Amino acid sequence: MIISIYALNNGMIRVVQQSLLGSILSNMLLVLGCSFFIGGIIHHKKVQVFNKASAVVNSGLLLMAVMGIMFPAVLHFTRTEVHFGKSELALSRFSSCVMLIAYASYLFFQLKSQVNLYNPFDEERGDGGDSDEEEAPELTQWEAIAWLAILTIWVSLLSGYLVDAIQGASDSWNMPVSFISVILLPIVGNATEHGSAIMFAMKDKLDITIGVAIGSSTQISMFVIPFCVVVGWFMGQPMDLNFQLFETASLFIAVLVVAFMLQEGTSNYFKGLMLILGYLIVAASFYVHVDLSNDD
Amino acid sequence: MIISIYALNNGMIRVVQQSLLGSILSNMLLVLGCSFFIGGIIHHKKVQVFNKASAVVNSGLLLMAVMGIMFPAVLHFTRTEVHFGKSELALSRFSSCVMLIAYASYLFFQLKSQVNLYNPFDEERGDGGDSDEEEAPELTQWEAIAWLAILTIWVSLLSGYLVDAIQGASDSWNMPVSFISVILLPIVGNATEHGSAIMFAMKDKLDITIGVAIGSSTQISMFVIPFCVVVGWFMGQPMDLNFQLFETASLFIAVLVVAFMLQEGTSNYFKGLMLILGYLIVAASFYVHVDLSNDD
Amino acid sequence: MIISIYALNNGMIRVVQQSLLGSILSNMLLVLGCSFFIGGIIHHKKVQVFNKASAVVNSGLLLMAVMGIMFPAVLHFTRTEVHFGKSELALSRFSSCVMLIAYASYLFFQLKSQVNLYNPFDEERGDGGDSDEEEAPELTQWEAIAWLAILTIWVSLLSGYLVDAIQGASDSWNMPVSFISVILLPIVGNATEHGSAIMFAMKDKLDITIGVAIGSSTQISMFVIPFCVVVGWFMGQPMDLNFQLFETASLFIAVLVVAFMLQEGTSNYFKGLMLILGYLIVAASFYVHVDLSNDD
Repeated sequence: MIISIYALNNGMIRVVQQSLLGSILSNMLLVLGCSFFIGGIIHHKKVQVFNKASAVVNSGLLLMAVMGIMFPAVLHFTRTEVHFGKSELALSRFSSCVMLIAYASYLFFQLKSQVNLYNPFDEERGDGGDSDEEEAPELTQWEAIAWLAILTIWVSLLSGYLVDAIQGASDSWNMPVSFISVILLPIVGNATEHGSAIMFAMKDKLDITIGVAIGSSTQISMFVIPFCVVVGWFMGQPMDLNFQLFETASLFIAVLVVAFMLQEGTSNYFKGLMLILGYLIVAASFYVHVDLSNDD
Repeated sequence: MIISIYALNNGMIRVVQQSLLGSILSNMLLVLGCSFFIGGIIHHKKVQVFNKASAVVNSGLLLMAVMGIMFPAVLHFTRTEVHFGKSELALSRFSSCVMLIAYASYLFFQLKSQVNLYNPFDEERGDGGDSDEEEAPELTQWEAIAWLAILTIWVSLLSGYLVDAIQGASDSWNMPVSFISVILLPIVGNATEHGSAIMFAMKDKLDITIGVAIGSSTQISMFVIPFCVVVGWFMGQPMDLNFQLFETASLFIAVLVVAFMLQEGTSNYFKGLMLILGYLIVAASFYVHVDLSNDD
Repeated sequence: MIISIYALNNGMIRVVQQSLLGSILSNMLLVLGCSFFIGGIIHHKKVQVFNKASAVVNSGLLLMAVMGIMFPAVLHFTRTEVHFGKSELALSRFSSCVMLIAYASYLFFQLKSQVNLYNPFDEERGDGGDSDEEEAPELTQWEAIAWLAILTIWVSLLSGYLVDAIQGASDSWNMPVSFISVILLPIVGNATEHGSAIMFAMKDKLDITIGVAIGSSTQISMFVIPFCVVVGWFMGQPMDLNFQLFETASLFIAVLVVAFMLQEGTSNYFKGLMLILGYLIVAASFYVHVDLSNDD
């Protein structure tokens, strides 16, 4: 996150937006897809189940993030804002505060009150150091929040490291900048989460897998993105939630597909394969997509 | 409804459209959200459940209403109608008739044939005078229909009363007209429903709450709106279902979020909070939204 | 399919696209709606249930098809492709290959590994000669694949027969070409499937009904359409997945409505009626829709 803010300070708003968006997409589709696929192949004799209630709450948060991101994009697109250009920024800042409140109350909701309802398999968890919120029942609340902070910094560090190198890479490899930011960067940045999510799926501990994959997506969309908007506000950078129409539509359909796959509470290798192939289609779309707002 | 038709007669098509849209949004997101939130806090020891089947049928009707409203807007937007301007009106009138048939058969379906399936908790109901369709099992059919008619008139009366005062208020408070029509007006107009929905949620009678909140949204979207279109048809007013792209997108994402929240058949305070915060984002979007079609 | 390829060879890309799209829409909404409606009226004393897991996998495939079709349309619409016109074609060809892989693995998934899980009512099936994949448990795999191929050819033959006659009919009946391709043609072409789907619904064998109605939609969207794109690739015809915004939006909302109706695993006559009325709205929309890309 420190590096994200550093990039933001240098005015690289669009790169920050795109790498965060790509991080959400790759966590949701690629990491979850690979986990379901490999887990499903190893355990193909039986149906893998996971905690439906927690998956539904996470999908609900993702849908809310889509809502927050969609309104500025549609408003900008239909050119019906009150003051052209300024209104989206004001709306984005307001929505970001609302999203931060929602994420804070989500943490409160998960840590405090309904631990038993939403974490029925506590004994299965906490044996891996890299599942974010899922460790909560065995840690004190402040340790859990500290872990969250450390993890967030670490994730942003890895992806942030490459931010400066993008423009050069785009020229030398002859690829659109948006493809590198949205697809390549997050795959590298999420490598560790990717590995641990697959490992837990292989051990048939799908709840941790979903905690890592969907939990990270929720965290980025409802915490890191709004936080960057608010920090940009104080730094005077016009970072907003307007991700352009194409990116918003990608996120929208991806969240719908994931929410649909999760709603049943079971997984198998075919669902995983569908998510991976869906990610391939998204990646290919970004490969032929040129980002007009970079040229402005 | 009488007042809606009066406003329609004076050619205030856009105000009628927007206040009906706002009424749907506030019922779905704000009333339901507050009910879930307050009900969830009072009963936070347990999971509140409601009748899933009836919630799914209502969400299905709302999705169908979105379908009816979306096609004229997309058709207008992509400028692919056969006769510019006229085709949407013809399509809207046809769709309105289809929606009225759907709503009539929904009433028939609920009153006549599957009372037992969809109303398993009859004994819990009917103790409040303001739950619309839910009273049916204890009333005769005609009494129920009469109640429906009276309630509809009463709701429209309250919101209709303020219609004339909007333009003046918009000037003196320096707010967009659409914000007043879509957000402020329905909050006032739905105050009683709001109160009774929360009251029943506090008594853990969520089925009545959903009947009031979602039932009203369904009633407005599938009965009041198409009825206004048909009445406008006879009066020669070009009232159509084309709510413009921004409004349609708001309704679409709101219905998706609500359908997603309802599909599990349980509620808790966090779901309520998500709905309320979602409504805040929608309200903020309308605050910075200027309605171009008013200026035409 | 042979006829589709013949039409493709003559450069009638748009007609092929539209009749395939219409085939998906009519299978999903009209055939399924009529089956649910008639089945629900005959068996109105009880709730008809079907295999939820298989319906969810099919809906997931349909959502993935929407994804594949949506990206080229949005890319084209937002004019953000790298090379105007060419990029969509490249993307469509890549997506088509991905979709064919997905469909092949779906067949593998259904035939080989999880037969028991997804076909718990084997004994009820196989008594009708026209349910495609459903017969698999009683046939050898190669027989099943052969049946699939024969059925596909037969379906395409019926609809393909009329392709040449469309332009003339459009002039003499004074209807938009798109209405004939999207609505009238598929109703005639799907008549047999329609009949058999309703017949099985009347016998309370809803799993076969859904296999015919949704299975055909899946097959067309994930196999026939991508196959036509790939064949067009070899023939040098620029057939792509860009179905234009209006058609894509219709497909998107229709898939959402159907996925929502199927997710519960039960049906009744009211759900069927909603699907039929939804189809009426779609049909009316196409009636007033003029296809600009035909005039190019």
